[in-house]
Amino acid sequence: MMIRKLIVSLLSVGALVTSINISANEPIQPIKAVKPKNAEVAELGKMLFFDPRLSKSGFISCNSCHNLSLGGTDNIPTSIGHAWQQGPINAPTVLNASMNLAQFWDGRAKDLKAQAGGPIANPGEMASTHKLAVEVLRSIPQYRAQFEKAFGSDLVNIDRVTTAIAAFEETLVTPGSRFDQWLEGDKKALNKAELDGYNLFKSSGCAGCHNGPAVGGALYQKFGVHRPYKTASKAEGRKEVTGKDSDLNVFKVPTLRNIELTYPYFHDGAAATLEEAVKIMGQVQLDRDFNKKEIDNIVAFLKTLTGEQPDFKMPILPPSTNDTPRPQPFN
Amino acid sequence: MMIRKLIVSLLSVGALVTSINISANEPIQPIKAVKPKNAEVAELGKMLFFDPRLSKSGFISCNSCHNLSLGGTDNIPTSIGHAWQQGPINAPTVLNASMNLAQFWDGRAKDLKAQAGGPIANPGEMASTHKLAVEVLRSIPQYRAQFEKAFGSDLVNIDRVTTAIAAFEETLVTPGSRFDQWLEGDKKALNKAELDGYNLFKSSGCAGCHNGPAVGGALYQKFGVHRPYKTASKAEGRKEVTGKDSDLNVFKVPTLRNIELTYPYFHDGAAATLEEAVKIMGQVQLDRDFNKKEIDNIVAFLKTLTGEQPDFKMPILPPSTNDTPRPQPFN
Repeated sequence: MMIRKLIVSLLSVGALVTSINISANEPIQPIKAVKPKNAEVAELGKMLFFDPRLSKSGFISCNSCHNLSLGGTDNIPTSIGHAWQQGPINAPTVLNASMNLAQFWDGRAKDLKAQAGGPIANPGEMASTHKLAVEVLRSIPQYRAQFEKAFGSDLVNIDRVTTAIAAFEETLVTPGSRFDQWLEGDKKALNKAELDGYNLFKSSGCAGCHNGPAVGGALYQKFGVHRPYKTASKAEGRKEVTGKDSDLNVFKVPTLRNIELTYPYFHDGAAATLEEAVKIMGQVQLDRDFNKKEIDNIVAFLKTLTGEQPDFKMPILPPSTNDTPRPQPFN
Repeated sequence: MMIRKLIVSLLSVGALVTSINISANEPIQPIKAVKPKNAEVAELGKMLFFDPRLSKSGFISCNSCHNLSLGGTDNIPTSIGHAWQQGPINAPTVLNASMNLAQFWDGRAKDLKAQAGGPIANPGEMASTHKLAVEVLRSIPQYRAQFEKAFGSDLVNIDRVTTAIAAFEETLVTPGSRFDQWLEGDKKALNKAELDGYNLFKSSGCAGCHNGPAVGGALYQKFGVHRPYKTASKAEGRKEVTGKDSDLNVFKVPTLRNIELTYPYFHDGAAATLEEAVKIMGQVQLDRDFNKKEIDNIVAFLKTLTGEQPDFKMPILPPSTNDTPRPQPFN
């Protein structure tokens, strides 16, 4: 038994060493596909993610602003909430979000489960309440049955709702990008411009913050390190969480995975194109004015970070019953 | 050759006679699965159906109000349009809509293709223009490639856009309901209450309008034949198309397929439950006050009309390019 354990440990170390070797000198590591720990919980989470009945109006679901057909975001500068309210900040992609050190631009939610409850009850977003959302789900027998399958009893509460949504979101990783193929040894996966762009990405300092498997998401950084970033946005970043003046304009470094899909860019969504985003990042974060060729190469590299997109059947949601609280779209 | 043709013809007649025999005495016929005439056109149509970039805001797609996770409708009395405008009428389901004699409640579009162009350019719905929608699609190389696959050239115009959306919608039929199983000979597919409900549905006159494979959709009828229907809705029905006073409050008879999923009911969405809808229909259309048991039985029958729901992978949409006109959600 001890010997067997020892062998397993040695094998694990071996696997680890191999995996380190592949990208040993690279600041970015490949994304690995994820299998849900509990498939029934993730399946329930998928249903909930697509269900607009979690909103007061019956019109807005998680997928409305984190649209999985569109890279897990809504591709508008700031999101549309209940009654067409304009959101204060750009919707971050839900793809690979499980790799973030915390959720939201200011990191105010410690994980996906803590995040999932936010928009449901935010009057400017889905504008429901946790109590109402739970009442809606509890009134639908097929949902109760899915809670039973997922959790062993048909109890519906917000803790289970957010657990399930987070479990689904944990499956939304995007392995298989051309860049990951290159990292894993296929040296033909990138062309010269892309490789030049990657080398400049490293040598100029981008990779100082945008690193790890998610190419970001692992730390906070001030936006405007060298030159001030001008914005109409009122978002203050980490300061809103910590209260410290030193945290003004400090935001979570966003993932660059699938960045080709998640335009427009920055917390204020002010950069419409990748070229514009790279130019501004060079200026305000690195005190460097990239020339056109440098920008084009970095953009070419960034476009190799698009991975395999979510691949599943559109969920069919169970109908409301006569006991289900009705949506209130217009009052 | 002639003999072979003759045999084939005789076999076809035989098949026809058999199929007539199954439901010979029934006013409702089973729904048959549909194979798209051109799979690439339907595939393009699916992408377009889910693409919110056909709207001015970049937020509203066909699927927003004809949500295929929710029975092809939005389950609110009247729909939410651009800038949260309140629509004038209940969104009809897109499921089995190809079987309707015409589209919209007032039949103002002769078919699905004619319908598809309406909401895109309606200022109260998606609020775009055909010109802008075409410009958006034309700017995206993966869309041009799909138009090429579908139509043989990469020309993008509104005729092709609406042709493709209609081709996708034609695939959205829902065979396999328990009622169809019963029609096709499985006499155990319905229980006694459901069968009693069906018999009452026929004997009381419901099937006078709700008949054919779609259990409706085949004719226009005045809403309020025997007693006036009271509503706050300003919709005038066919009168808005024909200009005739005699067409006031004349609407297309809606399909009852999947009616369990497509609440709330009527053109004004005023009936929240099937029980309420059946009660009112009895009163205003048949001059009959169904008792509770009669209502329950008819509702039990109606719930057997839920068929197989759309079964496909959520489409992944190609990203916009630097040349793509940007959404205008807030102006």
